[in-house]
Amino acid sequence: MMSLLCLFLACLSLFSTTKATMAEKTALLIATDGSEEMEVVITADVLVRGGVKVTIAGLNGTQPFKCARGTKIVPDAAFEDAKTGSYDVVILPGGQPGSNTLAAHEGVGFLLREQHEKGKLVAAICAAPIALKSHKIPADLVTSHPSVQKQLEEAGRF
Amino acid sequence: MMSLLCLFLACLSLFSTTKATMAEKTALLIATDGSEEMEVVITADVLVRGGVKVTIAGLNGTQPFKCARGTKIVPDAAFEDAKTGSYDVVILPGGQPGSNTLAAHEGVGFLLREQHEKGKLVAAICAAPIALKSHKIPADLVTSHPSVQKQLEEAGRF
Repeated sequence: MMSLLCLFLACLSLFSTTKATMAEKTALLIATDGSEEMEVVITADVLVRGGVKVTIAGLNGTQPFKCARGTKIVPDAAFEDAKTGSYDVVILPGGQPGSNTLAAHEGVGFLLREQHEKGKLVAAICAAPIALKSHKIPADLVTSHPSVQKQLEEAGRF
Repeated sequence: MMSLLCLFLACLSLFSTTKATMAEKTALLIATDGSEEMEVVITADVLVRGGVKVTIAGLNGTQPFKCARGTKIVPDAAFEDAKTGSYDVVILPGGQPGSNTLAAHEGVGFLLREQHEKGKLVAAICAAPIALKSHKIPADLVTSHPSVQKQLEEAGRF
């Protein structure tokens, strides 16, 4: 049976220091059409409240993306521009078809591998851990939405 | 001491029927700059998942509004257009200065009084109950964010 690790909680625990320290931290949240709006907005809001500078990057440039339940969000930056920055954590929200898009996007894969190789955090929520599989980001332990559990189990190390 | 009633939960309980029935229900959520993004998005998302047709109406027309923690959301409709529709519930999210704007907006007041006079639901979250006070919507019992508790207590009936 697949062992469990909530990467998202692991990510948040990084920030469980004082607010003064957290003001230095940065997060990149990559979203697109079909991302789950609560997973975008709650994640960003809680991190901002904690003093983290959050950039919501859109895979479709600076155009609004339409979330899984219809909310339309204007990204802070186009992914193509934001990907050159340095972030303490890169976060992938779940939702479909957003998770499939993140899993298939070569630029997202490049950024995640680079982030991981630097020893920095990558976090994936709900169905988005399929992007860790497709982009070959090592993760000994993972939890996910049940709809993608089989895909992750088939990857062996998940 | 002020008695307590969570109008928001009362609103949601209206929808605690079957999904088939809920498909007929409609909600208008009025938002503006400084509305709290979680209170906009979680409310809309949960209602949509329950089969409710949700319209997020922007007080600044169809332009994106910038929420209290920086998320920019594109409304489904301008408030001026959406206000002529019929809704089972009209919802006011909290956040500042969004709640102050909702409390001061004459058009919002007119719609809330009309909604109330028709015996339909009005719901206000967090700091937004100050709009019930300013627009003279009767509410025997109310709960709120602590920052506006005194204002509501001074209104007597809150």
